[in-house]
Amino acid sequence: MSETHDPAGHNAFDDLARDAVYQAIFGRRDVRSQFSTAPLDDAVLARLLNAAHHAPSVGYMQPWNFIIIRDMARRQAMRELFLAARQQELPQIETERRALYAKLKLEGICESAVNICVTCDRNRSRNSPLGRWHNPQMDLYSTVCAVQNFWLAARAEGIGVGWVSIVDTPALQRLLGMPDHVVPIAYLCVGPVHGFANKPDLERVGWGTRLSLADLIMSDCFGGEGEAELKQIAKTLSG
Amino acid sequence: MSETHDPAGHNAFDDLARDAVYQAIFGRRDVRSQFSTAPLDDAVLARLLNAAHHAPSVGYMQPWNFIIIRDMARRQAMRELFLAARQQELPQIETERRALYAKLKLEGICESAVNICVTCDRNRSRNSPLGRWHNPQMDLYSTVCAVQNFWLAARAEGIGVGWVSIVDTPALQRLLGMPDHVVPIAYLCVGPVHGFANKPDLERVGWGTRLSLADLIMSDCFGGEGEAELKQIAKTLSG
Repeated sequence: MSETHDPAGHNAFDDLARDAVYQAIFGRRDVRSQFSTAPLDDAVLARLLNAAHHAPSVGYMQPWNFIIIRDMARRQAMRELFLAARQQELPQIETERRALYAKLKLEGICESAVNICVTCDRNRSRNSPLGRWHNPQMDLYSTVCAVQNFWLAARAEGIGVGWVSIVDTPALQRLLGMPDHVVPIAYLCVGPVHGFANKPDLERVGWGTRLSLADLIMSDCFGGEGEAELKQIAKTLSG
Repeated sequence: MSETHDPAGHNAFDDLARDAVYQAIFGRRDVRSQFSTAPLDDAVLARLLNAAHHAPSVGYMQPWNFIIIRDMARRQAMRELFLAARQQELPQIETERRALYAKLKLEGICESAVNICVTCDRNRSRNSPLGRWHNPQMDLYSTVCAVQNFWLAARAEGIGVGWVSIVDTPALQRLLGMPDHVVPIAYLCVGPVHGFANKPDLERVGWGTRLSLADLIMSDCFGGEGEAELKQIAKTLSG
């Protein structure tokens, strides 16, 4: 690859390759309703899992496992957990938004080709918790990095991914038979899709809008002003 | 882009673009020691922050802020926090690995072009915790997704990133003046590099080896056997 994009002349991807990475980042969607009935090829799924497996991990701990859930009875049981959890969450939403919340499609558990639960085995540091003695949650964060790798690789492969977080965690642990030292990080609906939406669903339906990046930048300390030039450039960018 | 790579014929990137995404995933490194003295262009930094800002977030919460730390006195103070934390972590490492641990280069706080603290504002759901009433840590996970987007975009731009997790969190919060409802997720060293290593540092020095992906795949429940075909394909893949 050419190295024309790094100011120091090292290691940057060429234009097309760099733009492809941004295209995956900007074009990734949390897919709920656009799964097709096509199967997911094992060769593609293996590549996505390999992408996840190449995430950074604290102390090279690689704490993740990938539970591939195809059995429809188990998926229906998961969907029951989701439905119950959504009913419990609804009263926590502010009153004027509950009608909108109730209409939202928030999962594709039974429509997607497969479900995948990405878990974190908290014992895998084997007595050498490099980088997580002060911050023991770092293994959870490593596992999230694996999820995001999976998600971006899936976008490049044309495969949709939706993360279902509305679920009672102990109930999910029981459903999938996890031991106590293993926690579920992400329950994903995964499979071919009819298409990817141009915007996040929650933006399209008016639940929220994208914040201004410039407003999220701070200088040297929390709330610190400055970085005028960086903020000015940030205002010119879109996704 | 052509759509030849999706079995269903939708939305997959073409070969070169797909491979670029995998190249970013496989070629990303946790950079500690290879920062050059070149500055980081604001236009590049703005693109990396924009990539972070396009991460998925629970309930479209976008809980992140980006504190750009250039001031060298503050960076030196952060490095002191790191050094103290490393001394505290050392006795937690198993005895036979302590000599190796003590030799590891684990940060580039003062050598990198800039430091960035990515924070999570836990109040940004504004009374509508869609997707995080059962799992309140989902906002932390969203922020980690932003970090991973930043990291992969940086790889494509030829910019190195190192995540410093060996630090006392309350001390870091004080150093950067964070209010109680804001937590630091990642303290990143960011800047141009002389090069990217072929393997993770911790693999190169013998701290750990990459696990077998096939061994991490389970079927339908935790520990469930099966997925023979998927595991077979997984064994043929490398990064």
